[in-house]
Amino acid sequence: MISKSKLHKLVHYSDHRAGKIFAFTIHILILISLFSFSLETLPNLTDTQYLILHMVETVIVILFTCEYLLRLYISKNKTSYIFSFYGLIDLLAILPFYLTSGVDLRTVRLFRLLRVLRIFKLLKYSKALQRFQRAFILVKEEMLLFGFVALITLYLAAVGIYYFEHAAQPEQFQSVFHSLWWALITLTTVGYGDMYPITAGGKLFTFIVLIIGLGIVAVPTGLIATALSQTRKEEQS
Amino acid sequence: MISKSKLHKLVHYSDHRAGKIFAFTIHILILISLFSFSLETLPNLTDTQYLILHMVETVIVILFTCEYLLRLYISKNKTSYIFSFYGLIDLLAILPFYLTSGVDLRTVRLFRLLRVLRIFKLLKYSKALQRFQRAFILVKEEMLLFGFVALITLYLAAVGIYYFEHAAQPEQFQSVFHSLWWALITLTTVGYGDMYPITAGGKLFTFIVLIIGLGIVAVPTGLIATALSQTRKEEQS
Amino acid sequence: MISKSKLHKLVHYSDHRAGKIFAFTIHILILISLFSFSLETLPNLTDTQYLILHMVETVIVILFTCEYLLRLYISKNKTSYIFSFYGLIDLLAILPFYLTSGVDLRTVRLFRLLRVLRIFKLLKYSKALQRFQRAFILVKEEMLLFGFVALITLYLAAVGIYYFEHAAQPEQFQSVFHSLWWALITLTTVGYGDMYPITAGGKLFTFIVLIIGLGIVAVPTGLIATALSQTRKEEQS
Amino acid sequence: MISKSKLHKLVHYSDHRAGKIFAFTIHILILISLFSFSLETLPNLTDTQYLILHMVETVIVILFTCEYLLRLYISKNKTSYIFSFYGLIDLLAILPFYLTSGVDLRTVRLFRLLRVLRIFKLLKYSKALQRFQRAFILVKEEMLLFGFVALITLYLAAVGIYYFEHAAQPEQFQSVFHSLWWALITLTTVGYGDMYPITAGGKLFTFIVLIIGLGIVAVPTGLIATALSQTRKEEQS
Repeated sequence: MISKSKLHKLVHYSDHRAGKIFAFTIHILILISLFSFSLETLPNLTDTQYLILHMVETVIVILFTCEYLLRLYISKNKTSYIFSFYGLIDLLAILPFYLTSGVDLRTVRLFRLLRVLRIFKLLKYSKALQRFQRAFILVKEEMLLFGFVALITLYLAAVGIYYFEHAAQPEQFQSVFHSLWWALITLTTVGYGDMYPITAGGKLFTFIVLIIGLGIVAVPTGLIATALSQTRKEEQS
Repeated sequence: MISKSKLHKLVHYSDHRAGKIFAFTIHILILISLFSFSLETLPNLTDTQYLILHMVETVIVILFTCEYLLRLYISKNKTSYIFSFYGLIDLLAILPFYLTSGVDLRTVRLFRLLRVLRIFKLLKYSKALQRFQRAFILVKEEMLLFGFVALITLYLAAVGIYYFEHAAQPEQFQSVFHSLWWALITLTTVGYGDMYPITAGGKLFTFIVLIIGLGIVAVPTGLIATALSQTRKEEQS
Repeated sequence: MISKSKLHKLVHYSDHRAGKIFAFTIHILILISLFSFSLETLPNLTDTQYLILHMVETVIVILFTCEYLLRLYISKNKTSYIFSFYGLIDLLAILPFYLTSGVDLRTVRLFRLLRVLRIFKLLKYSKALQRFQRAFILVKEEMLLFGFVALITLYLAAVGIYYFEHAAQPEQFQSVFHSLWWALITLTTVGYGDMYPITAGGKLFTFIVLIIGLGIVAVPTGLIATALSQTRKEEQS
Repeated sequence: MISKSKLHKLVHYSDHRAGKIFAFTIHILILISLFSFSLETLPNLTDTQYLILHMVETVIVILFTCEYLLRLYISKNKTSYIFSFYGLIDLLAILPFYLTSGVDLRTVRLFRLLRVLRIFKLLKYSKALQRFQRAFILVKEEMLLFGFVALITLYLAAVGIYYFEHAAQPEQFQSVFHSLWWALITLTTVGYGDMYPITAGGKLFTFIVLIIGLGIVAVPTGLIATALSQTRKEEQS
């Protein structure tokens, strides 16, 4: 029989072979879970296909349950594991299956997606993430400033376009809130084309808003990139 | 009774508790004012909802009036406060309410939005803003150059597409001014889809304009980001 | 009477008062010329408006002719001025007016737009432009490489989408050339919405193309920005 | 008669005149091949035009065959050339022509496009590419991290919008896979306008997704640019 300490090593350390296989299996299961979850949303599934997906789901939840029980068994302090961040996620991922089996509560099954966070845990030891965190701290103040100014810019752009376009397109620019959607889609340059100014004043206003606003919205991205480059240099020297 | 000097400290210094609460309250009031202003633009408001919004507005304007009188009371030079930048904004934010009460002049109420500038005042002491200002001075010349070249590019793109598309789409590309709208929406990559070339010549022209123009329009953003990074480095050393 | 050498100073040196006024007047005339050119393209102009625009045009061309004759008069070597770059532009800007007066040849009048290049001449002494030129030389090789790879990427994206979408949308994706338009509008993220894949294969292909292609198309802009920052630093030290 | 070693020099070294001409001719042929391939996809070609294109194709394939035989003749180890990467590409580019002559198998002719890779071979000695490779290695870890996080972001954005919009637009947001297409087109800011949220919840969700997601998707580009700048600096010092 395998000792508890050996199981502990298997689950928590991935620097030896068995540990690596264990971690790899869990992550593959999470990815399969995400994929089968997406497949279930497809319309016009045949009964056979739905049955297969349900079986896959059942197997995955059973495996996740085994993992949960294993983690519970090897933890020294049971309560602290149950109420830890990952402990709660692990529980939330399996609980809905047992409670709602038979009932079609898709929203509850959304909790299973939380297991995607387990993948982020993988990144905890990644050097790149640590560098990114240091870079983020470096530019935190500027990010906050630009984030705040960007929100004010979005708001003022929405109010402005509302005054220019409301009379000409009352259906499209119904209120400042509807105009905020336009401001977001325009200043991020997504430009769906569901709302756009048609008056000369509204177009001129958009001109000014884009000239000023694009910089404000796009600068934070450049900031992160240059900060990362600086962090990398400091690391090397 | 509270002394004048104590009130002065309350209003102008936010480094002690009472001052912080005062500044915080004012900023929250400004945000509530912005939000209620946006809510008023919603169509199909019931009478009750409109009444509530009007009451919120009245309360806010009264509080802003108190603040204005307080600031006037504590200022040593009354006239200099009244005609100062923030003094005028504070006045413009409340005056329309008293002058137009009863009359539905939405445009006049726009002045209340000017109070959003008070929030910008908050940023005056922010290190990030000072760094940003220094970075902007560093790249001012380049920004002017690129801004100017970008405007010329927009104009030439508009003239070009007008000659290619006017014959094929006289409704869309009516004049150089209508084409300028196309040039703006295309070169900022917003791309609403309300205007686009359909002739082979117009498409080829767009190809060339995008290859050359995207760089011109997008470089200024990158400039600010790298300048900020440089300013930050100089600060550290 | 004003001496020839004084006129020479007036036209060619803008570091004293008279020279500044002369240069400023010419640039304002060029801008008025651009603006009246754009106004003429407006549809539904009344006869009076058209007459005014024609008069403005006549006055501008007469002033440009005076300037041309003045430049010719003060130049030591007449032939070398006539066949110089700016000499030819100055001539092309006025010649069509005399040759086609009465005839409505809009295209010929396009030559007047060439005078916009005179504005670029202004920038010749600008420090920012010189820095930009040095930065461009610094990254010339990378720009060529990315420009070339970007063109190949556009081509391969067009061929790919043609094979995925031609059968489903023969009207939209008629040929590789039509698909090239899609590739350009997608990879520059303009996204007009006049052409987009509807098959699952085409969408998956777009996914891959965007993930790879966006970097290739967007990197050159970042290159110029970082190179400018480097050039500025070298200048300071 | 030309010796084998001379032919070897002709084909493999482009630092003397004859070698340069040989390499240049091959690349021009590849470009003509790409262009005639594209022309063939045009609809409504007349019989004469189709005949000319077929002739151009035949001539090009014959010339490519000569080149293949020449490369085979001069290589010391015949089998190693045949099964080398470029040997297989050269063969795949000509083989379909002989096998399917008469048969209209456009897809098979796609292999000829593989010859475009020969152009990439040209870049092998380019300093800019080497610098780019070093820059890429420098930021490989960050690229992987951001690439992975970007994929997760796309997936979660798709699941989220599916839950908000599926009820309101069952035709557009049919499944998580359909929503993934929306997530891709929105987060890359292409914004075709074929799918967009219409519910208030969906719009608010898009707001949050764009604010967070744009940075994640756009950072890798900035990373490459700053890394290239660093590599260039290290080279100079």
